[in-house]
Amino acid sequence: MNAFKWSKAEKKVAKEAFDKAYQRESKKIINEIKNYKLEQPEDIWSLSEMLTEREKEIDNIYDYRYSQLIIVFGILIKRGFLSIEELDGLSDDKLEQIKKIMSL
Amino acid sequence: MNAFKWSKAEKKVAKEAFDKAYQRESKKIINEIKNYKLEQPEDIWSLSEMLTEREKEIDNIYDYRYSQLIIVFGILIKRGFLSIEELDGLSDDKLEQIKKIMSL
Repeated sequence: MNAFKWSKAEKKVAKEAFDKAYQRESKKIINEIKNYKLEQPEDIWSLSEMLTEREKEIDNIYDYRYSQLIIVFGILIKRGFLSIEELDGLSDDKLEQIKKIMSL
Repeated sequence: MNAFKWSKAEKKVAKEAFDKAYQRESKKIINEIKNYKLEQPEDIWSLSEMLTEREKEIDNIYDYRYSQLIIVFGILIKRGFLSIEELDGLSDDKLEQIKKIMSL
């Protein structure tokens, strides 16, 4: 899977899809923060803990190396931050692999 | 300074003052979070970093050991989360030490 070649056009599609998913996921976290129940001191620390977890998760998932992108896209679609249609333009073998990962 | 004896009445005054300051400082942080500019993904991580720093600060300052309380109260007054009047009931020698720390 790591041996895929990425054309210039595919790299453009990939970059746009990746950024779109990242913006969407960030927006979701921003909404979580804005709606977070902040009343007691301990709520501050549970929010802080939540953000630390999200940060680890994001660092883990959003890995823009071409050797990782197929898995990354599969995960992002599975998590609801991207649709397979937004990857239109990638080669059929790549899309097939992504679909396989989505269905895991 | 660590050799101060704390009467039951003084312990009550101290506990109430300590809790009051903690509630006030927490409220200030909650307001900071509520007013935090959250627009871009990077704003999430700067908020997260800010909270981690606040947590360290709070852990560091709010040390409820009788051996530390004089310094703690001096710092809390200096930081604006407590007034010397709220420590009415502590012995004169304690108040004197607290004032010394406040003025540092």
